[in-house]
Amino acid sequence: MTEPIRDLAHFSHLELLTPKPDESLHYFREILGMEVSGESGDSVYLRAFGDYERSSLKLTAAEQPGVGHIACRAQSPEALGRRVAALEAAGVQGEWLDGDLGHGPAFSFFDPDGHRLELYYESERYRPPAELRPALKNQPQRFTGRGVCVHNLDHVNFLAVDPAENRVFAEQHLGLRLTEQILLDDGTEAGVWLTSNQKSYEVVYTHDQTHTRGRLHHIAFFVEQREDVLRAADIFLEHGVVMESGPHKHAIQQTFFLYTWEPGGNRIEIASGGHLILDPDHEPVVWSQAERAKGQAWGMKTVASFHIKGTPPVPEEDVLLADAGH
Amino acid sequence: MTEPIRDLAHFSHLELLTPKPDESLHYFREILGMEVSGESGDSVYLRAFGDYERSSLKLTAAEQPGVGHIACRAQSPEALGRRVAALEAAGVQGEWLDGDLGHGPAFSFFDPDGHRLELYYESERYRPPAELRPALKNQPQRFTGRGVCVHNLDHVNFLAVDPAENRVFAEQHLGLRLTEQILLDDGTEAGVWLTSNQKSYEVVYTHDQTHTRGRLHHIAFFVEQREDVLRAADIFLEHGVVMESGPHKHAIQQTFFLYTWEPGGNRIEIASGGHLILDPDHEPVVWSQAERAKGQAWGMKTVASFHIKGTPPVPEEDVLLADAGH
Amino acid sequence: MTEPIRDLAHFSHLELLTPKPDESLHYFREILGMEVSGESGDSVYLRAFGDYERSSLKLTAAEQPGVGHIACRAQSPEALGRRVAALEAAGVQGEWLDGDLGHGPAFSFFDPDGHRLELYYESERYRPPAELRPALKNQPQRFTGRGVCVHNLDHVNFLAVDPAENRVFAEQHLGLRLTEQILLDDGTEAGVWLTSNQKSYEVVYTHDQTHTRGRLHHIAFFVEQREDVLRAADIFLEHGVVMESGPHKHAIQQTFFLYTWEPGGNRIEIASGGHLILDPDHEPVVWSQAERAKGQAWGMKTVASFHIKGTPPVPEEDVLLADAGH
Amino acid sequence: MTEPIRDLAHFSHLELLTPKPDESLHYFREILGMEVSGESGDSVYLRAFGDYERSSLKLTAAEQPGVGHIACRAQSPEALGRRVAALEAAGVQGEWLDGDLGHGPAFSFFDPDGHRLELYYESERYRPPAELRPALKNQPQRFTGRGVCVHNLDHVNFLAVDPAENRVFAEQHLGLRLTEQILLDDGTEAGVWLTSNQKSYEVVYTHDQTHTRGRLHHIAFFVEQREDVLRAADIFLEHGVVMESGPHKHAIQQTFFLYTWEPGGNRIEIASGGHLILDPDHEPVVWSQAERAKGQAWGMKTVASFHIKGTPPVPEEDVLLADAGH
Repeated sequence: MTEPIRDLAHFSHLELLTPKPDESLHYFREILGMEVSGESGDSVYLRAFGDYERSSLKLTAAEQPGVGHIACRAQSPEALGRRVAALEAAGVQGEWLDGDLGHGPAFSFFDPDGHRLELYYESERYRPPAELRPALKNQPQRFTGRGVCVHNLDHVNFLAVDPAENRVFAEQHLGLRLTEQILLDDGTEAGVWLTSNQKSYEVVYTHDQTHTRGRLHHIAFFVEQREDVLRAADIFLEHGVVMESGPHKHAIQQTFFLYTWEPGGNRIEIASGGHLILDPDHEPVVWSQAERAKGQAWGMKTVASFHIKGTPPVPEEDVLLADAGH
Repeated sequence: MTEPIRDLAHFSHLELLTPKPDESLHYFREILGMEVSGESGDSVYLRAFGDYERSSLKLTAAEQPGVGHIACRAQSPEALGRRVAALEAAGVQGEWLDGDLGHGPAFSFFDPDGHRLELYYESERYRPPAELRPALKNQPQRFTGRGVCVHNLDHVNFLAVDPAENRVFAEQHLGLRLTEQILLDDGTEAGVWLTSNQKSYEVVYTHDQTHTRGRLHHIAFFVEQREDVLRAADIFLEHGVVMESGPHKHAIQQTFFLYTWEPGGNRIEIASGGHLILDPDHEPVVWSQAERAKGQAWGMKTVASFHIKGTPPVPEEDVLLADAGH
Repeated sequence: MTEPIRDLAHFSHLELLTPKPDESLHYFREILGMEVSGESGDSVYLRAFGDYERSSLKLTAAEQPGVGHIACRAQSPEALGRRVAALEAAGVQGEWLDGDLGHGPAFSFFDPDGHRLELYYESERYRPPAELRPALKNQPQRFTGRGVCVHNLDHVNFLAVDPAENRVFAEQHLGLRLTEQILLDDGTEAGVWLTSNQKSYEVVYTHDQTHTRGRLHHIAFFVEQREDVLRAADIFLEHGVVMESGPHKHAIQQTFFLYTWEPGGNRIEIASGGHLILDPDHEPVVWSQAERAKGQAWGMKTVASFHIKGTPPVPEEDVLLADAGH
Repeated sequence: MTEPIRDLAHFSHLELLTPKPDESLHYFREILGMEVSGESGDSVYLRAFGDYERSSLKLTAAEQPGVGHIACRAQSPEALGRRVAALEAAGVQGEWLDGDLGHGPAFSFFDPDGHRLELYYESERYRPPAELRPALKNQPQRFTGRGVCVHNLDHVNFLAVDPAENRVFAEQHLGLRLTEQILLDDGTEAGVWLTSNQKSYEVVYTHDQTHTRGRLHHIAFFVEQREDVLRAADIFLEHGVVMESGPHKHAIQQTFFLYTWEPGGNRIEIASGGHLILDPDHEPVVWSQAERAKGQAWGMKTVASFHIKGTPPVPEEDVLLADAGH
């Protein structure tokens, strides 16, 4: 048995595209309580109070909502070198970019479904400005308590025409581990949950029923208590933010969740709970079609839009929602 | 720069000694809500509902309270081999033991202060009996809700005559990472917080003011919400369990805590919160003497017994407590 | 302006009918965590740990689920006398009963929809047995922490063919205050929330779409934190208890709720939050048809069964559910 | 037996004196999250988001910290008339004042210890400005989530040279009910907890060890969850607000508490939990000297300053604190 690859430290930031940059910025800064930590071109960089790096979200003006790229930090320069070599050896086309504000050179490439990924190692050590300096020195930044006041970027959920193909790619080339999975009766993998570390998941691929490539289902931000998710719901209510579903508990991964739409059209989750995978031999948990049909952990039936809508939106979504009786 | 050692997966279980085995068992089973998962000789094995292995606590009858050993699981057979070879190359005396119930051969040795540590890899995959089978298949065991219903063993805090010496040993031979540290004005390391993975700490060494070797300060069990710690306090109150300190928030590591005494005399913490160290370059947070003098995060002054008492108890504790005005 | 009637202290206990007395008893004792405090004939008396009287629930074996009676304690013997005199003066037929275990003579009568109500004043002062004695003397009973461990009976929601008629009766003869109300576009009162004290509601009447009299929609038990409702959901999940809806936040009254079915077929709510009505001039909050169509506070659409099903069940429910597309 | 007096609805607002009006205003508005709802002369009026009246706090610039007056709303004009007649019949000197912003004429008088009380009935119905309009129409104002975001004024704790004398006054003339009490071995009442309604306490008198009249121990604001008190502690920490004691649970009344000092020198409590007194015959809970010596509910020893310091400060406090070894 070969020992597993452990070259990646964690998925660290994400570029989100929005056709309504001002409204989206208001959502992330005033409602989610993130801080602006830089700007460049059409992009604004934002951070959550628990992030140790400069930013976890790059918000970029674009014609359509969706995801620009997602970045993953390597454990070391050597580890980064190994991953790039492995990708190139496998024929994956990539290029070195100068990197976003806050980190060094990044190797950029596409997963099989067409989402752009970046690997990098060098990272600026973030020092907060005076007004954001924390009372406790082991905290990267002050807890402002503004709005939802999210703690950190938790995970990204991509849509993919074929989740299995992307899982194999992530396992073989990036060394991600599969922790949970939906396996339909016909053998199709309808969803895969993957991680580079002891968090139980960082990247998810779920089936895109519109058969379109490169789309985003949602990104999730973490809060520390389940009560913080309930408080977030009260805050969204007062701000007129539409909540699609939740608060409730996922059967898969057991996360306590709440889904909203940010003004640019992307689905944003507020998540808490979950658990660590400490077992180096952890066997993926496989959910059958019948098990998934039971709904969420406490019995809530998932709303149809959750299964169908993604960003950028495609006309096929409307057809599918109409079929679902909405 | 050499790449860091990442051979250990996590600290997984601990043997606790008690002169009152029946009363201690009642505390862990009925009040903390753990399950008995085995027995052998003078020992009873217990597990928390979130543990993936058979047990996280081995409770052994003994003349004095204290710690028997603590065990750490390796990432792989190869990783285990590398750690044992490194220890032996450094002249550390050890022996292979058949292992506790639930895991395979363990390499047993002592840290510089005299606490017994064990490294192993092979682990039985735990399958709960029918009455403990969970509703969600990604949960190792049913959530019974009995008593405090702790989720998992969180960390151990050893007392040590010289914490620095033990830190160096753990870094060099085990590949543990230092995440936080108390550094007195005279250069003494009064406390060190170490981890083998992305939890921010698993093993702590704090200075033993009685200058006795091999003692235990406390072990900690994790609950998922801060509110669960408050609920635990209500349960301890009803059971007449003495609470030494808390609930409150630690400045170091930011854990929300509550300390109690189990009937055998050992200090047991209920902990929640904390954070992950995702940064592969994380710089240890160093707390000065002046910073420590400020008390806990929200201002509570630490009670004198917390600084002095450990297990097994030694007469010197009484002298020190008398000096502290108690 | 006449001063309002303030003769009633609070709605205090309820008799629930069940065709599965053993299973229902298991639900209330082992899952909700109530204590048995007496038995007589086909009835078992249960209490929550925050109740100051002997019991808040009388569970009675019957052919059909539903409600036997609900009891309200008067402020004083004189207040009781005034209410009975007023009811009799208004031509309401009633009779004096010896009372359930734990209280004195009760005046029994029917509301316009046919639910049986009882008024009483004399109440036994409950003293818990040794094993249920609390650590804090201002608490009526020990907090056992068993199961959901509900704190007290919170409210009852009756179904009524004509909620308005029952509201007028309750206001005029009992001195209950209306705090919130659903008023449809055609002037129909679809729901009325009433209280005898500073709790914002104790008794609710909502429209019975099956046009059957004397039915129950649900009874609710209170827990002290919203987190306790989430914990309850985890406990129900492990016990295989079906959750109809929630956890979520009601728009009306703002209670955080979770609805389950007890084995006898009655709907049981776990509720937290809510607020006090301290304003002696409080104007009822009136919700229009359009406002109600928005769903619950955080956007969840109410499931069809919630609008239709009650106890005892009637064949008409199936017709209505079929019409609703279920 | 005469029926009890029920003429008062609730204690509703309080005037707090501060020598640092700007800093105090910053504390209440930015840190506690209250809204300014008016100004007049040297006073600023503030409200919490759950208050149905215009304001619950009148902050007035003064040379010394302390309390200006506390106001209680009557159930009706008739009830107000009855209370004033009873006070005057008992020889209590009082005068009619035009009232603070937001309410009508108030009858002003002093309790035996010299605190100024006001009784009134007429109250302006508060309508929030557009930016503070709530999403739910049964909520008086938007939940802004700013800072601690307190829900309402909960209670006031006066210091008194002789708590018993003030209890008798409050029972006889105001119809307040005693719910809990500290009774020392020599028969002295060291503390009394009183209410006008079903809240378990609204006004407390505890013994002033400096033998000075008319002083304030603290005022308390309510938050809805215990977790909100923990979150408040995190917010106070970031703002550099000194926390005197807590978070912890009171044995008396079981409130979950946290005490801070506002910049003007007054002690401010953040409180949650507690319970309703629904029993019209509730017997006061009497705590003995030995029971009080046990400390708070979960074992925390009360800090010496809590027993001694009040506002306005008096030199005798320093003597007493020195005696207590501080």
